[in-house]
Amino acid sequence: MNRRMIFYMVGNIILLEAALLILPALVALCYQEMNGVFSFSLTIIIAALTGGAMKLIFKPSNRVIYAREGFIIVTFAWIFLSLLGCLPFIISREIPDFFDAFFETVSGFTTTGASILRDVESMSYGMLFWRSFTHWLGGMGVLVLIMAILPTDSGRSIHILRAEMAGPVVGKIVPKIKETAKILYVIYLGMTVLEFIFLLFGGMSAYDAAVHALGTAGTGGFGIHGDSIAGYNAYIQWVITIFMVLFGVNFNLFYFLLLRKFKTVFNNRELWFYFGVLLVSAGIVTYSIYPIYNNFSDSVRHSCFQVASIVSTAGFSTADFNLWPDLAKGVLFILMFLGGCAGSTAGGLKISRVIIMLKAILKDIRHLLHPRSVTAVKFEGKSLDMATMHGVTTYFALYIVLIAITFLLLSFEPAFDVQSNLTASVTCCNNVGPGFGLVGPMEGFGGYSWFSKLVLTFAMLFGRLEIYPVLLAFYPRTWTKK
Amino acid sequence: MNRRMIFYMVGNIILLEAALLILPALVALCYQEMNGVFSFSLTIIIAALTGGAMKLIFKPSNRVIYAREGFIIVTFAWIFLSLLGCLPFIISREIPDFFDAFFETVSGFTTTGASILRDVESMSYGMLFWRSFTHWLGGMGVLVLIMAILPTDSGRSIHILRAEMAGPVVGKIVPKIKETAKILYVIYLGMTVLEFIFLLFGGMSAYDAAVHALGTAGTGGFGIHGDSIAGYNAYIQWVITIFMVLFGVNFNLFYFLLLRKFKTVFNNRELWFYFGVLLVSAGIVTYSIYPIYNNFSDSVRHSCFQVASIVSTAGFSTADFNLWPDLAKGVLFILMFLGGCAGSTAGGLKISRVIIMLKAILKDIRHLLHPRSVTAVKFEGKSLDMATMHGVTTYFALYIVLIAITFLLLSFEPAFDVQSNLTASVTCCNNVGPGFGLVGPMEGFGGYSWFSKLVLTFAMLFGRLEIYPVLLAFYPRTWTKK
Repeated sequence: MNRRMIFYMVGNIILLEAALLILPALVALCYQEMNGVFSFSLTIIIAALTGGAMKLIFKPSNRVIYAREGFIIVTFAWIFLSLLGCLPFIISREIPDFFDAFFETVSGFTTTGASILRDVESMSYGMLFWRSFTHWLGGMGVLVLIMAILPTDSGRSIHILRAEMAGPVVGKIVPKIKETAKILYVIYLGMTVLEFIFLLFGGMSAYDAAVHALGTAGTGGFGIHGDSIAGYNAYIQWVITIFMVLFGVNFNLFYFLLLRKFKTVFNNRELWFYFGVLLVSAGIVTYSIYPIYNNFSDSVRHSCFQVASIVSTAGFSTADFNLWPDLAKGVLFILMFLGGCAGSTAGGLKISRVIIMLKAILKDIRHLLHPRSVTAVKFEGKSLDMATMHGVTTYFALYIVLIAITFLLLSFEPAFDVQSNLTASVTCCNNVGPGFGLVGPMEGFGGYSWFSKLVLTFAMLFGRLEIYPVLLAFYPRTWTKK
Repeated sequence: MNRRMIFYMVGNIILLEAALLILPALVALCYQEMNGVFSFSLTIIIAALTGGAMKLIFKPSNRVIYAREGFIIVTFAWIFLSLLGCLPFIISREIPDFFDAFFETVSGFTTTGASILRDVESMSYGMLFWRSFTHWLGGMGVLVLIMAILPTDSGRSIHILRAEMAGPVVGKIVPKIKETAKILYVIYLGMTVLEFIFLLFGGMSAYDAAVHALGTAGTGGFGIHGDSIAGYNAYIQWVITIFMVLFGVNFNLFYFLLLRKFKTVFNNRELWFYFGVLLVSAGIVTYSIYPIYNNFSDSVRHSCFQVASIVSTAGFSTADFNLWPDLAKGVLFILMFLGGCAGSTAGGLKISRVIIMLKAILKDIRHLLHPRSVTAVKFEGKSLDMATMHGVTTYFALYIVLIAITFLLLSFEPAFDVQSNLTASVTCCNNVGPGFGLVGPMEGFGGYSWFSKLVLTFAMLFGRLEIYPVLLAFYPRTWTKK
């Protein structure tokens, strides 16, 4: 166990955060929010000192790390990032309570978008910008970012990439990890800027467009209005719908598009399945909500927006879907589990996992019919071996156990009903954001006790890092064993 | 594909049902319910003619069957049994609607105990007896019964036993299948009689004791009063609690007890896990409901009863748990998925599957820590290979997909909310019975449309036969391929 390397890397991350915090500090300065400028500056100083000290103290002689260290680095980096990232909220007294601020920051970094704020419109520009910026950073991954910009230390950083990026199989696009990380971030930045421009055309102010582009790109979902996106015009809602769908697509495919490898993109099964799910769900939801809006174009818009928002796990909303008919709610509930494509910024189970599970089921059925026959299962052109399929089905079991435990712990909350607790667990574990009932899109998580907030905070972290890294980081034997 | 043998066996089952229907006919005669006597008699004639004709027409020359035929025989047997078994309800006009009667009968045979009846107390003695008798027959399995009493045709009937009996690994207690089936039924009958006697001691009438013993033994849950077991005294409630727990235990263990192999029983991990789940859950539920009853012994009794009822998937109730605090409801909701031990009459996922899944998860975590080490996973003294673990986790994925599809189809129902639909799906797929909201223990499934009733009917069937047999029976290639 290379402990020095772990804390050294975490120190690096904290220094990066100190640098990144300059951006919201500048935003606060622009809007002459002196309280905000002070809070961000103080946090930058604290982060710079902490990160610098950690780098000095833990300067490693040996830079070799294994999968084990990768898991711990990612988990600790995310926890430290959130602990320091919530300081501006606390120092400025805009979110004075630690558990609230920590929840909000983890919800930001994990791109969940669940909020404890009762009155988001009373927040300052700087803080709201920082909140949405955490979405953007967490979406593609903070460690992926550090790999893209820092000189690579060793050939072992694939372990960090694997631990931070979501999906069952994370590959490198190009042989070099540093290059892969750079390409991903360039595409990510490019698409964010593109959405920003499209939003400006819709009449949004530069601030609003920036905040919403950051929130969409990370598939986060923090809004800056009490009614999320409902107050904006139809054009803006459609732009956000389309970009939510795009940010739920595997980023490798965008790279292939740039390389003009259209056939590779066209043959991607996950992509078609993803579009299929979106279309069918949007169709059913439109049918279900039509009687409410009594207008085809409104029904289609709200339905497409909400389906894209839940599948991509962004969590924005243009309507209070809590009040929709139970058919629409039923579809949305199922979608809360799915998530977008692997290798996207979306949370959830991921479409490719769902496909692999379905293939494993079909294989078992075929095996029952013909016990002696051996048939190869293929996915995305490669044959799926049993170990991969078993890895996915086991992950699914663990994922359901995680949701069940979260739900059980929330049940100790006296004032919340089963539906609210269940959907809160599902949306937090899947990094979606809003649920039904008391945690609906026009409500919030502020009513929960500090204990439940902490439970949900960890649920979001488990969900974003896909459980194993966090479990391993807190498993004593990970630390003691050679 | 030995089609003749399939229909020949189904014919056998129908003849058996004709014989078994004499019992409720006699009950109706005792209570001088001439309408009932007529309905049962007519059904007996129809069943005898149908079964006899099928046996004559499909008399097979070749009696060899494989796993494939086993699945189809079991699925078709259960569907035919229910189609004929619902005739008395329809003929007597006590449940005039076909979909209602079919739902009620499948709910009986699958030991679910979900009811469409709005006023159970208006039903005749004969019909209520038949309803509970279907629980008893379905609990251990109708095909297991036929194996116990008919001369075995071939050494292949293990395929039928495997398809009908629940749990991940079904073994024979003794080398001969016929003997295994006999032993199981003798233990089953013995324990049912024992409960009957205990209930008589509590002051129940012979009729009430019989009906409740049959319903407990099959872990079914059909009651004969509007308030289920709430009207009976505490002694009776405790007797039923204890027997629900016992009927959720693997029957092999009772056989080992009779053989005085106490150590084998003591070393059974599933049993300890089962008791652990019961104890912990009862503890939390007691804590949660204490403020309602303000009386320790009442709280413990209601809590133990309800926890045992849900875990064993019987579904009786002594209180309207719909009105309990959300902590108690949260625990019960999680328990609705679990089910009892493998090889018991309980439905649900089964404790042994849960243990195997947890072991698969732990193995994967260990593998992440030490990618090169190979550790053997053990369960019940035997090593678990990857194929078994993968079979269990894949089954789990399929099981969740089944619940999700059921829920989605129910969502088209206009008058039911998400909570009711979700718990209806969960309790029907797990053969538990009552859910929350509009399908709570003091409510019923009568409000659903014929379509939703049919969906739930098949959900119960899928759940009882553990999905694969029913899927395969309706999979065209099962029939066409050699």
